[in-house]
Amino acid sequence: MSRIAYVNGRYVPHVHARVHVEDRGYQFADGVYEVCEVRDGRLVDERRHLERLQRSLSELRIAMPMAMNALKVVLREVVRQNLVRDGLVYLQVTRGVARRDHAFPTVPVKPALVVTAKNVSRAKSDAVADAGISVITVPDNRWERVDIKTVGLLPNVMARQAARDQGAKEAWFVDREGFVTEGASCNAWIVTKEGRIVTRSAQSGILKGITRTVAMAAAGIEKFGVEERPFTVAEAIGAKEAFLTAATQIVMPVVEIDGNKIGDGRPGPIARALRARFHENAEIAD
Amino acid sequence: MSRIAYVNGRYVPHVHARVHVEDRGYQFADGVYEVCEVRDGRLVDERRHLERLQRSLSELRIAMPMAMNALKVVLREVVRQNLVRDGLVYLQVTRGVARRDHAFPTVPVKPALVVTAKNVSRAKSDAVADAGISVITVPDNRWERVDIKTVGLLPNVMARQAARDQGAKEAWFVDREGFVTEGASCNAWIVTKEGRIVTRSAQSGILKGITRTVAMAAAGIEKFGVEERPFTVAEAIGAKEAFLTAATQIVMPVVEIDGNKIGDGRPGPIARALRARFHENAEIAD
Repeated sequence: MSRIAYVNGRYVPHVHARVHVEDRGYQFADGVYEVCEVRDGRLVDERRHLERLQRSLSELRIAMPMAMNALKVVLREVVRQNLVRDGLVYLQVTRGVARRDHAFPTVPVKPALVVTAKNVSRAKSDAVADAGISVITVPDNRWERVDIKTVGLLPNVMARQAARDQGAKEAWFVDREGFVTEGASCNAWIVTKEGRIVTRSAQSGILKGITRTVAMAAAGIEKFGVEERPFTVAEAIGAKEAFLTAATQIVMPVVEIDGNKIGDGRPGPIARALRARFHENAEIAD
Repeated sequence: MSRIAYVNGRYVPHVHARVHVEDRGYQFADGVYEVCEVRDGRLVDERRHLERLQRSLSELRIAMPMAMNALKVVLREVVRQNLVRDGLVYLQVTRGVARRDHAFPTVPVKPALVVTAKNVSRAKSDAVADAGISVITVPDNRWERVDIKTVGLLPNVMARQAARDQGAKEAWFVDREGFVTEGASCNAWIVTKEGRIVTRSAQSGILKGITRTVAMAAAGIEKFGVEERPFTVAEAIGAKEAFLTAATQIVMPVVEIDGNKIGDGRPGPIARALRARFHENAEIAD
């Protein structure tokens, strides 16, 4: 079956999913995106993702490309047409097409909207989580507005590639003070020797992850203690557990950081518990 | 006449100039660009622009999309087909099209190449230069690798828009120490009370502008003293002259910074001299 994409008003075969070269997403990274998990054919935490989309757009003074209810219909239609049962739906909104000039178009243009969806093997993801993954750390060289989920992801691309070059699956950014901020496409967490869960506050240096929010709620219900504070690479390496959160990875145990085994080198009980109970705390859309 | 764009091997009418939604330029800002002035139908400083393109691509480990001589032919053909006499040619290279994943495609893909060109009125540009322009200053919130000319230009977009919102033409970025780095799409210069030209060294915080390099050579020939060092906003406001350099603006006098008149509020003699003599020092291609 050929994949189907929604592109500016039309459902088209993936191979024909094209945008203009002067779409400002292409020439200026002038746009934002969201990735939403699909589970059993239903969107996970759609409300929170769309609220964050609205916030990102508002920070950049880009209008919503269509009414929220219409957007929800498009997301469902793309999931349906692609027969996605477990996987993800990706949506990208840019400021639209205009003759190249840094400033916003003086004649208002319609924001561009692209939506794609695909299946991702749940079994494969669970197998990765059973083994746990390795991460490396890299200096955080990104711009200051990482609280906006923009498509300006080149630093993240280079960090993720550095991870792969070193045989790892993900890279965690480290700020000038030596504290971990977040991963190339995830939030970063550790569990201290005392059994307390630690993750950086969303007030600075990170995107406020939806999965992070839900995992925090899950931790509360499980009566795990959570501290929102920065932690150093050294503290992470000496931690009892480490893990990351992202919509496409849910809660993913980290068993190695910069070549150092975390705990006993296997996924820890808290990460496993949060992963197992995650969807009880997420909002599953109709 | 309809404009013509070169897109991945084909010359197409501008309205049909499209790239795939999974072009990594669109989803990750994983690409670079150059803008080259065209004057009397000939490319200005093409060699330096293409050398910088090669450097940008090399820093990101993207291959050249075609041999250098072939690329030169494409640039000329786009200029010719668009009947550009005075204006610019824009070229963008991205890592190519691949299923969305931050890391580089595991199966090598062909880099994407888009080239467009347009006329820009020389008389209009000269009239702007005769009056001089206003700039504002904004905090430099960009990523650390501004030495690479990437399409990740959202901070520049927001800065330029802030300038327009305040009735100015350009925004100059200011680093944490209070020193001007560069503009949203230009290098920043001042002339001190003692008549010395000052611009920040290209060793940190800025893109090494081609026009900057040529203007510096022109200043040398004119026996103007040039200092490569950072300057503060206060020093700029108190300067005798200020100006900016960019391929599309050549040397553009700045007569107001953050609402403060520079010198007597009119373009200064050094900026005017550098603008007038610029093309004697640039390389004009065949």
